[in-house]
Parts: sequence; C-alpha cells; structure tokens
Amino acid sequence: MDNATIIFQPSGHRGKISKGKNVLEAARELGENIESLCGGKGSCGKCKVLIAEGHYPKYGITSHRNNLSRWQKTESNFITRPEKQKGLRLACCAAIKDDALVFVPQESRASKQIVSKRPRLLPVDYDPVVIKYDLIMEPPSAGDARGDLERILSALNLQHGLKDLGCDIDSLYACDIDVLRYLPIRLREQNWQVTVSVWMDREIIRVLPGRVTDTYGIAVDIGTTTVVASLVHLNSARILDTQYIMNPQVKYGEDVISRINYHLQNKDGLRQMSQDIGEALNRMIEALLQSTWPEDTHGADTTEASDDPDAQKQREKTDTEFLCLVPEDIEDAIIVCNTIMHHILLQLDPRHVARSPFPPVVQKSLNIKARNLGINICPSAYAHILPNEAGFVGADNVAVLTAEAPYKSDQIQLIIDIGTNGELVLGNRERLLSTSCATGPAFEGAEITFGMRAAPGAIERIAVDPETHEVTYKVVGNDAWSNYVEAAELKTRGICGSGIMDILAEFYRAGIINKSGAFNKKQKSSRYRVNSENQLKEFVIAWADETAIGRDITITQKDIRHIQLAKAAIYAGCKLLMREWGTNRVDVVKIAGGFGLHIDPVKALIMGMIPDCDPEKIVSVGNAAGTGALITLLNREKRSESDWVARTVEYIDLASLEGFKDEFLEALHIPHQKDPFPHLKPVVPTKILYQE
Amino acid sequence: MDNATIIFQPSGHRGKISKGKNVLEAARELGENIESLCGGKGSCGKCKVLIAEGHYPKYGITSHRNNLSRWQKTESNFITRPEKQKGLRLACCAAIKDDALVFVPQESRASKQIVSKRPRLLPVDYDPVVIKYDLIMEPPSAGDARGDLERILSALNLQHGLKDLGCDIDSLYACDIDVLRYLPIRLREQNWQVTVSVWMDREIIRVLPGRVTDTYGIAVDIGTTTVVASLVHLNSARILDTQYIMNPQVKYGEDVISRINYHLQNKDGLRQMSQDIGEALNRMIEALLQSTWPEDTHGADTTEASDDPDAQKQREKTDTEFLCLVPEDIEDAIIVCNTIMHHILLQLDPRHVARSPFPPVVQKSLNIKARNLGINICPSAYAHILPNEAGFVGADNVAVLTAEAPYKSDQIQLIIDIGTNGELVLGNRERLLSTSCATGPAFEGAEITFGMRAAPGAIERIAVDPETHEVTYKVVGNDAWSNYVEAAELKTRGICGSGIMDILAEFYRAGIINKSGAFNKKQKSSRYRVNSENQLKEFVIAWADETAIGRDITITQKDIRHIQLAKAAIYAGCKLLMREWGTNRVDVVKIAGGFGLHIDPVKALIMGMIPDCDPEKIVSVGNAAGTGALITLLNREKRSESDWVARTVEYIDLASLEGFKDEFLEALHIPHQKDPFPHLKPVVPTKILYQE
Repeated sequence: MDNATIIFQPSGHRGKISKGKNVLEAARELGENIESLCGGKGSCGKCKVLIAEGHYPKYGITSHRNNLSRWQKTESNFITRPEKQKGLRLACCAAIKDDALVFVPQESRASKQIVSKRPRLLPVDYDPVVIKYDLIMEPPSAGDARGDLERILSALNLQHGLKDLGCDIDSLYACDIDVLRYLPIRLREQNWQVTVSVWMDREIIRVLPGRVTDTYGIAVDIGTTTVVASLVHLNSARILDTQYIMNPQVKYGEDVISRINYHLQNKDGLRQMSQDIGEALNRMIEALLQSTWPEDTHGADTTEASDDPDAQKQREKTDTEFLCLVPEDIEDAIIVCNTIMHHILLQLDPRHVARSPFPPVVQKSLNIKARNLGINICPSAYAHILPNEAGFVGADNVAVLTAEAPYKSDQIQLIIDIGTNGELVLGNRERLLSTSCATGPAFEGAEITFGMRAAPGAIERIAVDPETHEVTYKVVGNDAWSNYVEAAELKTRGICGSGIMDILAEFYRAGIINKSGAFNKKQKSSRYRVNSENQLKEFVIAWADETAIGRDITITQKDIRHIQLAKAAIYAGCKLLMREWGTNRVDVVKIAGGFGLHIDPVKALIMGMIPDCDPEKIVSVGNAAGTGALITLLNREKRSESDWVARTVEYIDLASLEGFKDEFLEALHIPHQKDPFPHLKPVVPTKILYQE
Repeated sequence: MDNATIIFQPSGHRGKISKGKNVLEAARELGENIESLCGGKGSCGKCKVLIAEGHYPKYGITSHRNNLSRWQKTESNFITRPEKQKGLRLACCAAIKDDALVFVPQESRASKQIVSKRPRLLPVDYDPVVIKYDLIMEPPSAGDARGDLERILSALNLQHGLKDLGCDIDSLYACDIDVLRYLPIRLREQNWQVTVSVWMDREIIRVLPGRVTDTYGIAVDIGTTTVVASLVHLNSARILDTQYIMNPQVKYGEDVISRINYHLQNKDGLRQMSQDIGEALNRMIEALLQSTWPEDTHGADTTEASDDPDAQKQREKTDTEFLCLVPEDIEDAIIVCNTIMHHILLQLDPRHVARSPFPPVVQKSLNIKARNLGINICPSAYAHILPNEAGFVGADNVAVLTAEAPYKSDQIQLIIDIGTNGELVLGNRERLLSTSCATGPAFEGAEITFGMRAAPGAIERIAVDPETHEVTYKVVGNDAWSNYVEAAELKTRGICGSGIMDILAEFYRAGIINKSGAFNKKQKSSRYRVNSENQLKEFVIAWADETAIGRDITITQKDIRHIQLAKAAIYAGCKLLMREWGTNRVDVVKIAGGFGLHIDPVKALIMGMIPDCDPEKIVSVGNAAGTGALITLLNREKRSESDWVARTVEYIDLASLEGFKDEFLEALHIPHQKDPFPHLKPVVPTKILYQE
C-alpha cells in the first residue's frame, strides 16, 4: 500500500495520501488550512498539530505517533517537551508512514488569518428554487392515451400535490421544450419511473432516470477583475469546489470605464466582451465539474480551468466521493456582479450607467435560460441574475445586503464593500441608504507605481518595524514571509490591493509619513530616498535583488496620494451617508472585500478610511457578495428578499450632496495622533512583528 | 399613358392595368374572381360583366363602354341583344382602352364554385394577444435615475393601468432580453416617446418608435402535404396575403407514417425534417412580407417564394397600400397541424403517436419564442401552437372545432375533416366525441394508379355523361374544362384528390360500376376495357393524346377498391361515433377539407361516405382548420377556448370499438339505389353537364 488515510479534526477533512508526504502537504491536498509562515521550511513553528493515539472505528483507522516519521531537531525549537509528550508535531516535519488522525489546534489554523468575527456560513434554510419529485406512473394504455407530459403533470398533482403546473391557458411554462425532446425515450427506458426537476413550482427543467434526490447549483460572482464560481450541493448547502479566474475582459481595460469605452469605440466590442466572460464561465464550470471526477478519468489536471496563463487559479477542494457530475447536473445558477459587468454579460448597452444620472437599462432581477445565456449547465435551467440597485451599485451589492441583512436589524450598520468601486450601505430595519464612491483603481493596484493585480509575485501584506523601519512582506503564491525565506525565492513583482491597503497605516505608525501623508523630513532608514531620476520621494519595500524584476519596488509620494484619494472617497462617503440618514454614530461597521482583499479593521481606522468608532465594532465580513450569492442560490425566499431590498434601498448620489467636496478634502488627512490603538494589535499580517 | 384604372364592383377590387389586356386578365391581376370555364377562349360564355356608364368622383374615373374594345361576334353566342344594350360583355373578349368600372353579376363570380352555405369569415371580436401601448415618458434625471425598463413599466401602469407587468418576483416575464438590448438607444432617439407591444399583458416583446397602432400576425397551417400561411392585419382582421407551398417533407414520404419511418431510420432525420419545414415557413414569410412592398423595390417577382420547382404556389392578394412590412412587424403567430407535423416541427419524437395506444409527447398548447423556433418574425414574439387532442387528431382538428364551435350549439353536428387522415367530430354543447379514421392516402392521390398531388396537370374534377359515358375533366392550373380546349393544352399528368373524390359517384350514377364497386358487365363505352398487360379492368379518364405523359390515364378496379376503403373508413367512423354518442341522426353535417379539396355534398352522399341525411343539411366548410387558425390569431379568448375544447373532447379509438370491422365492411358498398337525388344537381364540377 502506497497510501495512508489522513483525517484532520475538527474539520473532518479526510482522504488518501501518498506515504512519504508530510502532514502539511497532506493538509493542502485535502483542503485543510494549516498556518505556515515559512512555507514548510521548519523555521516559523506555526504548523503545530496533535497526532491522536488510538483506534477510530468510525473512520476505520488506527492512529499512532509512530505512523509518522521520527522527531526532528528543528521541532524542538518550537515545541516544548510537555507538548511533545502530548503528541504535538510540526506538520512540515512529520512525514506520513501510515494512517493518522491529526488534530489542528486553533492557533495553527490558517483560517485565523481571515479576519472574521463570526462564521461565514450563515444559517440558511434549505428552500431551493429547483425541487426534485420522483414519480411512478402507469404506461399509456387503450383507456388512457394521454400525452407523456400530461401524464407527468397529472402524477405531479396526484403524488406531490403540485397542482398549478401547466393547468392554465398560459402554456409558456409547464415544461421546457428541450425536456419534451428526450421525454418519450427517458420515460420508456426507465419504465415510467423518473424524477423531475421543477423550477419555481412551474416548469419542468429536467427529467432524470429513476429516483434522484441530489441537486447542484453554481454561484457566480463576476467582478471587474476577478470571477469566482462555486459548485454547491444544494441539499446539504455544501460547497464542493470553488474556482477563481481573472476576468478576461481585463485585456480591454482594468476598470469599468475603459470597458465601456471599448464598447463605444468598437462596433462589436460589447459582443466580444460578453463572449469572453461567457467562455471564461464555461471554463470555470468545466473545472468545477472536473473536480468531481477522479483525476485520471479526464487525464488532465483539474486545476487547468483556463488557457489564460495570467489567470490566477486557486482550488478550495473539499473531499468528494467522485460525484462525476456532468453539465446537466447543474440545475440552478445565481449570478451577481456590478451593473457594468451585468450589462456586458447580457449585452445591454452600459454607456448610460456611466453618465449622470446613471440610469441602468434594467434594475429588476432576471431569469434567463442557461442556453440563451450560453453557459454550459443544464440547458433548460434558469440563471437568476440578482437585481441592480442604481448607477454602479449593482447585483453584487444586493448580494452583500442579502447576506448581511441590515434591514432585519435594529442596530445601525455601515457596510463597506471595497472592490474596483467602493460601495456603501448604511441603515437598519427602518431605512437603508446606499451609494457608490469613486475610490479610483488604487486599491486594485492601478495608478500605483509598482501596483499589480493579485497574481503570483504580488506583495499582498506589508509590515514595517516601527523601530528600525525594516520591511517584511508576503507575496501571493508563497506562504512564507520575506524574513523567513531567501527573498529572491519569492519572485516579487509588485504590490497588489491588500498590500497597498497596509501602506498608510504602517507608514504612519512607524513615523515615515505625517498626518497629511507627506514623508517626514526625519527618516531613520536608508529605504527612504529621493529618486535620482525623477526627483520623487520614495520608500523601498523590496530591494532589487529580492525581486523578479531586478528593480527596487518602492512606494512614491504620488502613490501615497492616490491611496489617500481612495480612502478619503470612502471616508467622505460614510460621513455623508451618516449625515443623510441622520446619525453621527453607527453600531456596527462591516468591511467586505472581494477575493484576496481582507482588510484589517485597525489599519482601516488608523488610516482614516472609516469613521472613528470602537474597533471592537468593526468586523471584516470577507466576500459578502459571494456569501449573498450562495444564500440566494440555496433559498428561494432570499431571492424575493433580494428583489425587495433592491427596490427598497435608497440610492444617494454623493456628488449631488452639499458639502461633498469639503468632506472629501478633509478626509484626505490621517485623522489620528500617532498610534491611536496601542493596545490593539492588527491580527494580520503583522503578527510576526507584533508577537511577544 | 399606358395604364387604365379598372374598378370591379361590388368587391371594390381596383388597380392600374396595362391597356390592351382584357377584362378577364385584369380581374386576375387585381384578385377578382370571374368564372371562366374555357379559360378565356370565348367559348363558355360564363364571364359576363356589366360595363358602367358615367363619371365616378369617388374613384376619380369616367367609365364608358367605348373605353373597351369593340363587340366581337362570339359574344353574341352568349349575350342577348337586350343584355348587350344594358352594357353586358364577355370579360375575355373586352380589351381595355381606358378606365372602366366593371360590375360582376352574381352568376359570373367564380366564388360561386366554392360550395359553402355560409360566409367563411366568421365574426370574431378583436381581442388580440399582443396589444400596443403608446407611452410618453420623462427622461432620467438626478431625482429619478430608474432603469429604462422600470421607467417603461411605471408608465404602462400610470398611463394604461397595466399593473402586474414585472412587479412580482417572477422576472421571467416583463421584458424580452432582445428588447432590453435595443431599449436604451430607441428610448433616447425617440425622445422617450415610444409604443410597446405587450404579449398576454405580461411581457414586452417590442418597443417601436413614436406612436404605432397597427399589429400584424401570421396564421400557419402545416399539412402533411400542403402548408398555408396567411399574413393578417390584426386590427382590421384583414388577410393581406396568403401563400401556399408544398410541405418539403414530402420528399421523405407522402404520408405521416413514412415521415416517422424516415426519423426511425435516420439518426438526424427528425432534425432534417424540422429544418426543412422551418426553412419553408421562412420562405413563405419572406413572400408574405414581399407582398407588402412595391415589386420593383425588391427586384424580384413576389410570387417567387420558393426555390422548389415542384412547389405549388398561389397568391390570394388583396390590394395593399405598400405597407412595406419587415419580419419584426409580425408580432404574433398561430400554428396548427396534425400531431405528427406538430412533433416533427418541434423535434419531438413522433414514433409513439403511430403505435397503439398512440400517446403524443405533449397535448397542451405551447407558446414558443419565434427565435427558438427559428422562424423569421419578430424574434421576441411567441408562436402559439394549438393543443393536440389525442393520437393523430392534432391541433388542426382543434382549429376546426374552434372555427365551427359545435360545443356552443344545441344541434348535433357531425364534422368531417378530410386530409391525409380523416378526422371526425360529433356532438353539441352537451358532449363532444372525436376520432381519426385511417382513410389511407387514396384521397391524397397515393395508392391510385394515376394518382398525384394537386399540382399543375392534375385532374381535379371529373364528370361522366350518364348517357354516353363520355368524360370531361378539369386540371389544376387551367380554368377550362377539357371539352372547351384542345385537350393536349391541358398537359394532363394524373388525378389528384378532388378528382378521385368524384369517381365513385360519377361512375355509379352512370352505371359504370355497381353497388359493390365492381365494373358492370355491360358497358356502353370503349373507355372501359381489360388492360392487356395486367388483365385489370379499367376505365379511361383521359386518352394518351390528351396527356403530357403519353399514356392513357385510367381508373382501375383496384383504384376503385382503394377509394372504397377510404370512404368506408369515414362512413364507418361516422356511424360508430353516432352509436357512441347515442344518436341515429345528426342535425348538421359539415365537410371540411384542406386547400384544393372541396367536396360535393351530393356526391359524398351518393358514394356513401357520409351517413344518409337530407342533402340540405350538408355544408362544405372549406379549410376550417385554416379558419380556426385565423380565429385564434385574432382572439385571445378563442385560444383559451381551444385549450378547453382540446381537453374536453373525448377521443374514441375506433379500432377498439365493438363492431368496427362489420361496420367497415358494410360501408364498402354504395348504399343507394341508382341516383337517389335525381332532383339535386351537384353544384360543381358537373355544372356544365347538368345545366339546362
């Protein structure tokens, strides 16, 4: 036997792992997130795990410390003798020799990095839009020669009480035409025992052989930069796989305005861009489906979802029982996106959304047949596209609202969703306001000298030592911080959004810049300099020899100004929304961000991106739009709710408000005296530096 | 001036005619039907018309007898001196020199040939499925930046009280996606004044510039052999043009069974046949649209609807004001057809319809987007396909029922629709029965030695002189009977359905055959003979030198047997339906037939195709399926009614009834003594022979 069964607890992730691999590698294969700052080199000591001793009949394995390789000296640097006696090991040092049950202590779980004060998996009732009904029918006879469809409709009524399906004159519904095409053979081959999938209690979108209960759907979040798609087992609300890909429209321009311009300047531009995103969705769907097959069945690496070499792909694979799903098995789909992505996908002219007073072509939610949308799921299925609010505030913000449901709360909530645009919602069950603020693309890496997208080699976290002004950083695609590895190994190429988010707070705390954002005259590090070529003041984040580009990666005074403009837009927006709502305090601040953009509440406060409040009131809710998409995928009532909230929320055009400019100029400054929260440590990424 | 204005009264047909043409030619060009048995040779005297004298300010013309060519001697053979003084002329002898108002007396109108006791244009209320609403809206402003669609929906509510459109969670409706794609530019180019076409009060299928009131639709009747499509101005219930074409699927087989076999034997057969009929429909639609354009605009003869040289095309063109319609202008469509044509069109497997117990895939009516059906009308429009009853009794019979509405009558009606299959309906407001009887394809020309389709050269009427047994006939494509022209000129090629229908009654009346259908031993004509090659008894209808095929066209004993089988199937069906219903008499017999098949009630009685009854109770209702299609095109309530009647009518499987075989064998005989109705003259086609 070359494989051993490894089970991680408390997550329950389990699977067969080739003997010889270490526990950290096993964790990655099975989707278990174990902290490892050094990337598995045994030098950070973060990946402590406990090896269980005993027989576990539930899993059919016997776990023993001797099933792992022998103790290594380097482990003693991090694990005390009493801990060793308990069974603690460093995951990266323990090679697998046989079955093991591995307990991952709270402090070793990498999920801790996601700054979240409450569980992301909101409780959602199982109230699906597509419901399966199994039927047993009598075959046609001389006394009963009704049509095949009529036989099914009657059985649905008699056996499941589904009365209204296709009984009225309106015969648009009742059954999709594609289903009618395979209906006769399916019924007869299956001896009149089938399962029908019914959409919204009114249309049969699929007829399956025999008795089937499992239903699958996808939730898609089309961002300006990143597209995320999850395959979900609807019955259990379990995410089977998630695919990330760069929006291929990026080649037409980084932001929504340049996409609109491409449409205006190219006769076929809209169709082209729509086709690009359609093809990207289909590649993602293919990869999602491949994740349910044994790898050798398809002969291809299941992570190869895209031909785009630039595309950033990650897999969050949970253990599957090889469901071997095919496109037809995906019977429901939710799509969320901002208004421009929405219009481009549907080939609706987006130009007016970008011009005052910014009217979209359509606000209401839409149900579009998958085959008409060109996505390769069950062709008779409907994709539900959440409604747009107004202007740039689109279905993605509706998803955020549906996920966070401030309209059900007495507390006044401020929800900040930072993507290529900043979208703000303020309110409670009494009144909801929303707005969009022009952050500019700085947080996406554009307009920043060494800015780049969140791709391998991008600096995603930055920490500055307040004493020495030394910099450590972490790049996308490598678990280790720069001080734990040979810097050159990181192949650093630039700074992406979440790294850019760190700059102001880290620089200000260390005294590198002052309240107005200007570099202080007195600098203690040689990293600060005046660039000899362009005479710009700058601060070196990574030295040339640490990079893959052979140049110093710096933050210039101009970069800092762009970041200030972005954070000031959000700050001013929050203040003005609060003024409009009629409150000078909020009970909760929720910071949401797309994939890879996890904002540290403390840093957000320090840099003055959100109004002053108790840091304890700030929660980072991660990709709330994605959560909203999942919720509306799982729950029909939530779709109604999202329609309702899109109609209910009041959109405020910031630029039309009095005092907008003053508020914005004021917000450019860093509002605090030096280090306003000395007792609080940002949880991530500066944990190494701030640890005792 | 080379043209003169010719106006026909009382029809009102009018137009410009090249000088030099005669009045009969003018009548044909302008759609006026004037009787002409000899085809314009001046030898039948049927085309008498009255030339008006005087100035007609309403029409702006002065009509005078001298505006026509001089009196010809041949006219005196048919027109008396007093008649001549009144202004009577033979239309075929009077060439046009200048403007004329021409009155066509009742007896000269060719429409008299259609045996119909009541007007075919049933009164139908204008209750359309697609309704146009004109809207004037305020453009978006800072205070009102709703979506373009939301602005329209609100205006529809406020200006026309259309409340429910897209207000609920169900967002499948409200607006077609294609409309959303051109919505922004149309609204802005039209300065927010548009007309929207709304389907079934629930979906916008078109947005037109400015204020528009006219709506157009098509009614399509897809027969196994012939396809008919009419373009209708819905507001006025006026038929603008009708196109006839042969069903291109005929190349796969003449009857429905051979089409099903083609599907069973060819993997791609169903798609091929569906595509063929789809392309045919599009050619017809193109021709219908071209009829609304001046001919030189398109540079093509508008009758060139098809590339198929075999296709039989006729045009029933009324005067149009050059509406210049485009495909998008056709916003509604009705399709009727038998169950097999229905299934092939929609690519539904038809095999089970042909096997006991004959269940169709679907019975209910369907609304399918034109673009999904592949027909080139407004792509967002819906085609409404009437429901199937059961087995072979399809939407075409539902259309017959909806047209004749026996379910609204106290009288017991027997409706016989003779197509490739015979479909029977019996009942009144209390109970309705329907059935299909396997007439076999004899009435379609198949299985008959010289049988052929109703194409040019086909004998469509046959008359036998009871004294001499001489035969006269009329062929498709020529107005003249064979005794009025050089027979060779007729290019006779065979006998089509309506000619075959004449055989039994004419042969029996003349004493050529006896009650059992056998040739009498005693024959007075050399047309009867025993064929030297195959020893079959036969009767010559057309001698070889009269034909285009160089062979005698005959009716053999075997042919007579096939005709007997066909008529017996109908007779037995009628009798059994009456037995099932519980009646031994019917109040009305309605004989319906597809295009070109007008049955003479008296002959139907003589040959024993319908149960004995007072000939006065028999009416020929022509193409009732086509009428039903038009009615449901014009009236939304009638679509509900057709859904209701399809569910209500009880389908009887004749073969399963006791006594079916006996009844059928009995029905093979001709039931009457010689000439049961000596006082009645068949109206057509033997009018020449029977005239005093």
